[in-house]
Amino acid sequence: MSNPLIIEAVPGTSYADITREFDAPVEALFRAHADPELFRQWIGPGEERTEITHWDFRTGGGYRFVQRDGNGEYAFRGVFHTIRENELIIQTFEYEGWPDQVSIDAIRFESLEGGRSRIADHSVFSSIEALEAMQSEGMERGMREGYEKLDELLAAES
Amino acid sequence: MSNPLIIEAVPGTSYADITREFDAPVEALFRAHADPELFRQWIGPGEERTEITHWDFRTGGGYRFVQRDGNGEYAFRGVFHTIRENELIIQTFEYEGWPDQVSIDAIRFESLEGGRSRIADHSVFSSIEALEAMQSEGMERGMREGYEKLDELLAAES
Repeated sequence: MSNPLIIEAVPGTSYADITREFDAPVEALFRAHADPELFRQWIGPGEERTEITHWDFRTGGGYRFVQRDGNGEYAFRGVFHTIRENELIIQTFEYEGWPDQVSIDAIRFESLEGGRSRIADHSVFSSIEALEAMQSEGMERGMREGYEKLDELLAAES
Repeated sequence: MSNPLIIEAVPGTSYADITREFDAPVEALFRAHADPELFRQWIGPGEERTEITHWDFRTGGGYRFVQRDGNGEYAFRGVFHTIRENELIIQTFEYEGWPDQVSIDAIRFESLEGGRSRIADHSVFSSIEALEAMQSEGMERGMREGYEKLDELLAAES
């Protein structure tokens, strides 16, 4: 049984708070966000294959990746405003198919007892409409399936 | 008489739309945002002196500047998510005195008739509270006085 994905969006605002626990230490959870070879194995919905086309994981750096499924390909890019190891990533996020609609995520990494950990992501969209559009495009499914792949990756690593 | 600064914030949201016209062509207006030697002359409230400590004006780049008045110094930094010349800047913004509270601005540059131009800035804060805090800290005065200095700079250049 996997840990639940909790998405809380206050109606009328353009942001959502996403929390998810993991049965792995915070250092392993953070590494799976920092290392492109690990990151590409879990990000996105279940059936998609991810290729990292740019990766510069540091404060002031940036990233870009392309996901492919049977229907086509989808590219995403952003910049890293803040990276603090095992603690915090603040980054922008843009789906290139919807240009100039840029969201910003503040992803906190927390250590829990018993070698477990938690992600708390405050995800801010450019408007209420942009948040609603992402929700209707399957944001919840993409995150849920991605984190389930991350569970498997963390279990295989330990 | 200067052009008015218009700040529209929809109550209950964490974003504000800021528009301002200028009596100068869009190319000159954009250059005053792109060139650090020009930028430092107008950004911020009237009495402050600005020093640029980092400037990499390109998509994927970043900036940092420090402002000083009689009371102390205030540092700001961010990353440039998108730069399109004479058209668009999307950037993050953080006041280092309030760490990890990061806003994101999408600043559009528009050409108007008669050699005039307009800025339309969609400014998104991390929460309703963060927007209210910036408003109570004199966001309006800082922008108004900054843009008045920019008026003078553009008039002197032309």
